Amino acid sequence: MKILILNGPNLNLLGEREPSVYGDVSFDQYFTQLKDKFKSVELNYKQSNHEGELIDALHIASRQVDAVILNAAAYTHTSIAIADAVKAIQIPVIEVHISNVHAREDYRKHSYIAPFAKGIISGFGLQSYELALQSCLYEQK
Amino acid sequence: MKILILNGPNLNLLGEREPSVYGDVSFDQYFTQLKDKFKSVELNYKQSNHEGELIDALHIASRQVDAVILNAAAYTHTSIAIADAVKAIQIPVIEVHISNVHAREDYRKHSYIAPFAKGIISGFGLQSYELALQSCLYEQK
Amino acid sequence: MKILILNGPNLNLLGEREPSVYGDVSFDQYFTQLKDKFKSVELNYKQSNHEGELIDALHIASRQVDAVILNAAAYTHTSIAIADAVKAIQIPVIEVHISNVHAREDYRKHSYIAPFAKGIISGFGLQSYELALQSCLYEQK
Amino acid sequence: MKILILNGPNLNLLGEREPSVYGDVSFDQYFTQLKDKFKSVELNYKQSNHEGELIDALHIASRQVDAVILNAAAYTHTSIAIADAVKAIQIPVIEVHISNVHAREDYRKHSYIAPFAKGIISGFGLQSYELALQSCLYEQK
Amino acid sequence: MKILILNGPNLNLLGEREPSVYGDVSFDQYFTQLKDKFKSVELNYKQSNHEGELIDALHIASRQVDAVILNAAAYTHTSIAIADAVKAIQIPVIEVHISNVHAREDYRKHSYIAPFAKGIISGFGLQSYELALQSCLYEQK
Amino acid sequence: MKILILNGPNLNLLGEREPSVYGDVSFDQYFTQLKDKFKSVELNYKQSNHEGELIDALHIASRQVDAVILNAAAYTHTSIAIADAVKAIQIPVIEVHISNVHAREDYRKHSYIAPFAKGIISGFGLQSYELALQSCLYEQK
Amino acid sequence: MKILILNGPNLNLLGEREPSVYGDVSFDQYFTQLKDKFKSVELNYKQSNHEGELIDALHIASRQVDAVILNAAAYTHTSIAIADAVKAIQIPVIEVHISNVHAREDYRKHSYIAPFAKGIISGFGLQSYELALQSCLYEQK
Amino acid sequence: MKILILNGPNLNLLGEREPSVYGDVSFDQYFTQLKDKFKSVELNYKQSNHEGELIDALHIASRQVDAVILNAAAYTHTSIAIADAVKAIQIPVIEVHISNVHAREDYRKHSYIAPFAKGIISGFGLQSYELALQSCLYEQK
Amino acid sequence: MKILILNGPNLNLLGEREPSVYGDVSFDQYFTQLKDKFKSVELNYKQSNHEGELIDALHIASRQVDAVILNAAAYTHTSIAIADAVKAIQIPVIEVHISNVHAREDYRKHSYIAPFAKGIISGFGLQSYELALQSCLYEQK
Amino acid sequence: MKILILNGPNLNLLGEREPSVYGDVSFDQYFTQLKDKFKSVELNYKQSNHEGELIDALHIASRQVDAVILNAAAYTHTSIAIADAVKAIQIPVIEVHISNVHAREDYRKHSYIAPFAKGIISGFGLQSYELALQSCLYEQK
Amino acid sequence: MKILILNGPNLNLLGEREPSVYGDVSFDQYFTQLKDKFKSVELNYKQSNHEGELIDALHIASRQVDAVILNAAAYTHTSIAIADAVKAIQIPVIEVHISNVHAREDYRKHSYIAPFAKGIISGFGLQSYELALQSCLYEQK
Amino acid sequence: MKILILNGPNLNLLGEREPSVYGDVSFDQYFTQLKDKFKSVELNYKQSNHEGELIDALHIASRQVDAVILNAAAYTHTSIAIADAVKAIQIPVIEVHISNVHAREDYRKHSYIAPFAKGIISGFGLQSYELALQSCLYEQK
Repeated sequence: MKILILNGPNLNLLGEREPSVYGDVSFDQYFTQLKDKFKSVELNYKQSNHEGELIDALHIASRQVDAVILNAAAYTHTSIAIADAVKAIQIPVIEVHISNVHAREDYRKHSYIAPFAKGIISGFGLQSYELALQSCLYEQK
Repeated sequence: MKILILNGPNLNLLGEREPSVYGDVSFDQYFTQLKDKFKSVELNYKQSNHEGELIDALHIASRQVDAVILNAAAYTHTSIAIADAVKAIQIPVIEVHISNVHAREDYRKHSYIAPFAKGIISGFGLQSYELALQSCLYEQK
Repeated sequence: MKILILNGPNLNLLGEREPSVYGDVSFDQYFTQLKDKFKSVELNYKQSNHEGELIDALHIASRQVDAVILNAAAYTHTSIAIADAVKAIQIPVIEVHISNVHAREDYRKHSYIAPFAKGIISGFGLQSYELALQSCLYEQK
Repeated sequence: MKILILNGPNLNLLGEREPSVYGDVSFDQYFTQLKDKFKSVELNYKQSNHEGELIDALHIASRQVDAVILNAAAYTHTSIAIADAVKAIQIPVIEVHISNVHAREDYRKHSYIAPFAKGIISGFGLQSYELALQSCLYEQK
Repeated sequence: MKILILNGPNLNLLGEREPSVYGDVSFDQYFTQLKDKFKSVELNYKQSNHEGELIDALHIASRQVDAVILNAAAYTHTSIAIADAVKAIQIPVIEVHISNVHAREDYRKHSYIAPFAKGIISGFGLQSYELALQSCLYEQK
Repeated sequence: MKILILNGPNLNLLGEREPSVYGDVSFDQYFTQLKDKFKSVELNYKQSNHEGELIDALHIASRQVDAVILNAAAYTHTSIAIADAVKAIQIPVIEVHISNVHAREDYRKHSYIAPFAKGIISGFGLQSYELALQSCLYEQK
Repeated sequence: MKILILNGPNLNLLGEREPSVYGDVSFDQYFTQLKDKFKSVELNYKQSNHEGELIDALHIASRQVDAVILNAAAYTHTSIAIADAVKAIQIPVIEVHISNVHAREDYRKHSYIAPFAKGIISGFGLQSYELALQSCLYEQK
Repeated sequence: MKILILNGPNLNLLGEREPSVYGDVSFDQYFTQLKDKFKSVELNYKQSNHEGELIDALHIASRQVDAVILNAAAYTHTSIAIADAVKAIQIPVIEVHISNVHAREDYRKHSYIAPFAKGIISGFGLQSYELALQSCLYEQK
Repeated sequence: MKILILNGPNLNLLGEREPSVYGDVSFDQYFTQLKDKFKSVELNYKQSNHEGELIDALHIASRQVDAVILNAAAYTHTSIAIADAVKAIQIPVIEVHISNVHAREDYRKHSYIAPFAKGIISGFGLQSYELALQSCLYEQK
Repeated sequence: MKILILNGPNLNLLGEREPSVYGDVSFDQYFTQLKDKFKSVELNYKQSNHEGELIDALHIASRQVDAVILNAAAYTHTSIAIADAVKAIQIPVIEVHISNVHAREDYRKHSYIAPFAKGIISGFGLQSYELALQSCLYEQK
Repeated sequence: MKILILNGPNLNLLGEREPSVYGDVSFDQYFTQLKDKFKSVELNYKQSNHEGELIDALHIASRQVDAVILNAAAYTHTSIAIADAVKAIQIPVIEVHISNVHAREDYRKHSYIAPFAKGIISGFGLQSYELALQSCLYEQK
Repeated sequence: MKILILNGPNLNLLGEREPSVYGDVSFDQYFTQLKDKFKSVELNYKQSNHEGELIDALHIASRQVDAVILNAAAYTHTSIAIADAVKAIQIPVIEVHISNVHAREDYRKHSYIAPFAKGIISGFGLQSYELALQSCLYEQK
């Protein structure tokens, strides 16, 4: 099984920014742990601050992997274009968020992507990604 | 580790209602599978169509279990009282939904409970509960 | 033909409260008249001030009667849970109101239940129930 | 007892349009059946696609009949002028709808006319008219 | 100076409807008084319940009279088409209302016509028309 | 007959500000003309930029004059306190505006005062005051 | 191929009103040019200021022509009744506007008709009609 | 004088939950103090997390006590059914809140109950109840 | 203990205006009674129709008294400036209203001041002030 | 005449995605047909999923071509930046959509670009581009 | 060059209120520093808690100084009257705020004054005034 | 001191577009003047039409410069992603606008960035940048 983890804007700062809140683990470090834990899965990872690159990545992924775990960060709330891409491609997309978006600004409560995602997982810190991966394995059986 | 699964209104109809959509497995049958799979966890289960009973159950749970997996169903969108109970008790509460609530009526997009939940998992069918359980085990480590 | 009349919150006060407006006939008295008039129908009647009990009653009714005449009173405007129950059960549910809800507070103009009801009858006083019964008889033919 | 059935825009297409939904009975055919069934009532029928003609008809009706059964169709949701006419005349007006307007577009949920109608009946197909007629007979007693 | 008084829907009922509120003077009687009082003005009067006829009348008026006193009644709040006609024609249009529309339903507070009217007079009973006429005479000087 | 003309904020600039729009006549000059034209009326005039002074003036006026012609200018749209004063006093208050407030910013379309005014006249330039005076004379008869 | 061009309120003023904006060509003159240019099409033209007449015309057209080019003008934004007619008839309806409605008042941005139209063309001046005709010819092939 | 203190959802946790905020006095302890202080009053106390039980309690109270002091907690903001009960019964109901609900979430600013309450007291901690009792004694005189 | 009672716009009319509603007691007379009843308190009283004077009074009070009982009347709903003053000063401010503001116009349901007040008391007539005083005495202990 | 066709996000998937809806023709194939049909026009084509690239392309186009046919897809509804670019450049921009955007999600009904476009064509499938081209040729004459 | 600094409600408390936030410098002290720093400018300063006085001051300033630096504090968000004054006078007005109003309550995000101000500076503490002064000097050159 | 001036979409057209409004100075020319005037500051400048590049630039800047002067242009109103970047980085960001955004379209009144900016300066033309620079120098002292 091949899975792409696709991270949106500002998530490249993970581990660096507000370590007391987000921990001092960068996503790269976390990704290494994840690959160790899910050895049966061929895991890829991409981050971009560019809305267009995330759309490109979703298009390419639809021809190369079995599922996408997407944390579109701020674009979750503003990008109909990414939502259209999620809707257009055939493979399942899991929407994840590190923080509990419902406990933050009102404008983070609305997701353009969610209606077209297979499922949504938010608020479990970095473990949100792990739960999403787990859900793909269930699916596979 | 002790965990309560708490189901809200109309979830007692599971397995009976629209089997082509929800499958023909009742929650009781699913619950047996779940207990088999998570033997290390002391799992309890309660369902009620009564908002007040769900609040009572949350209060009691806070003195008896380590976490609650809560599918408040329709009350998710209308009950400030359940949200207040979730906020008042000390133990973590995971909000789960079987269906993707964001792909349904607009009024299902808002959750009073979510801001006070530890995390939210929705759209994975009955596996939403399993993922929630998994998240509690991560927590425990 | 078996039909359940299900009345929601505060309707137990009928006949007692504001007799100049609602008349001095209690629902029990009216129900006796109704049974006399519709002898071919096996009529049952239940009232509750509890949202959960109304949901329970709808679930049970779906296995025991052919149709429900539901006056959910104030819960009409606030209960997605009752609306979900109406949607989940197979038998037809007729929504009735004694008063013309459109001539009252703005918040009484919206009904969560109506989209899932077979039909809506409001404003005819106690005769709203009689018209609803009549509609069930038409249906039966 | 004299009663006018007054139908608004596009209802002249009944029986012709989407027969799988609305049946293949035209309103004229249905009206003949209705007159047969309610022989004690002097029934009249008028249809117009013109808002102004419906207002004119209500004014005239107030001097000629005992009640109006009004299906204002789309004008229900946009015409304050028809609502003012209903309010201005002395005779009771029953608002009817063939389909369940609450199960359709959001803009069909609001009725300018309802606050001034004696009662509202919607969702029972053509039998909505019959129930309305029935309500007038009750009234008469 | 030639002036057209143009009255909209339901104003033909004046004098007949709720005499305790509107008095027992019909508009025809009032119009006779008005002509007596403003002998120097060539006064015309037209009433229609039809939105389209009011538009037609405004178009014709623009070629025949010097000003229009328009009480569009309920269409004031719903007709962009009449507002467009008022905007399109060259002669001044005075918007009048018999009652104080701001002291009634919320939906009567908005006028599509007002932005294109020369001025607005409301709440003075039938004298609203007289004040409007007076304003035309001022203009003329 | 005694009448107070009460002008609100910024109206002291009349004649000085944007003479191409408002003309070069100050309100004082116009007031002299008005007194000449309506010799039978005992006319008073007060202007203030202070919300509180306008309220004080309305209170005093209620004991000294027969009617108030009030142009509350910007306070029309923001002052519930002035509206409460208009409602509290026994004498009629006519709301006037020089410009057509409906043809300007959206926030000028709402008036807190209008529901409690006897009538509203707007858009006739300084002649709005004259028409208001005229309406008081009608009343008197 | 038979096509009806159906124009709504105030479009009879074309060529007369604001010639610097709309040109000095009346729709009749333009219609002659159009017939010359599209000789293979049997073109008809009707204009009305009456909502009801436009509905009547759509009903009749559905039995006589192959497509309708509809400029409902102001009714575009207020008439659910015309939208229902467009939805009810079997033939394609093209919505056209001479001006760019999106560059004008906010209330012109919403169209009740558009969801049921085959396509929408706006902003090209009188050529909007020509493009609509062109689209019908494409369709025909 | 007989008075019922009726507490809504989650108020059973008082004294236990967040003692630094709410103090370590349970409502039972406070109630004992209150009875000591107001010996002339026959004080009763009931708490429930069930909306329906609060409605039942209000109905019963109307036949047994002289006034109700109601802290409906979260139901204040969501329950039209409780508001209807308050409106239906004859005895005065005082709405109280321990915290200043206006200083919290926006959805706590709206009360369905307040329009039908005799008065509202909020923000004085447990003394809100004492002030409410005091107001009943004034009333009695 | 020193307390200032500060009354806002139109409250000077108390006792004079609508005596059947507000009684025929002026605030001055009531204030005398209040001073008699609460002899241990040094009571001051000020009324102003001027928003700015109320702000000035709050500033001065913060250096001279221990608490303010503020009935800002209409300014409650429109004055962020008074709310800012309440927030800025160190002494507690109790918000009171004579009538039940929730049972009146919608715009009276929102208070800018409430979030910064110590507590809110409304609907008890003039006794609202007495209850507020009582609350200050509790505080003092 | 030089014209640029500029396509926004996800339009690169055309022909591949949902062929039953969009047909199995890719935009490249369609573009070849278009060049064949409009030989007198120098046609260019660019697609990008990147908002910034579309803005860059519009800037460059303004110096190289005579008109742009822009299908901004999802960015139509979210991008003020593209709208600003359309407004800033001197050449005409035609907004096109393949599907009827008014028959889809509500958020597709609003276009930031439309107010600054020369005209809008939507709902004609790929022929929307052809009609847009046709409109440019008219312009040229 | 003559410049007036005009401060609105509660700004007289500067230096006294919350010194940890606003510092312990009063505006008078700061004003002395400012005059020292900008010796070429004839600086005046006025503060008032009264909306009307601020309007008066703007009117007078327009005849005496070259520019006004206005911190209308809370009136920024509620006073159309001050906005009208800013619009009416000929001299430039710079809107300043000490704090970042966008980082506070939602109702502080809207300014009635801003559309008529020459420019807006907010969030720089007392240096907001200095920057505003600087902008006037640039202008002068 | 090192400062980055970061300009968003369409600002590359400065000097070229609408020279009567924006002047004929390009930002490059203005930037040269600015560097001359602020010799003590190491000034850098970057412009991009790409949301993602602006985010990248903010991330990089946080490691290289002491402050950012950000004119995000249209992205100000639509980009939560840029706002998140501003919030995430440690260095102060000053939001500037050349025009007075409050005097333009309503959608330009809201800024996602402002709550996280150190301060906001708008409406002073190109001098907005100079004032922002000045504010950084104050800060430095």
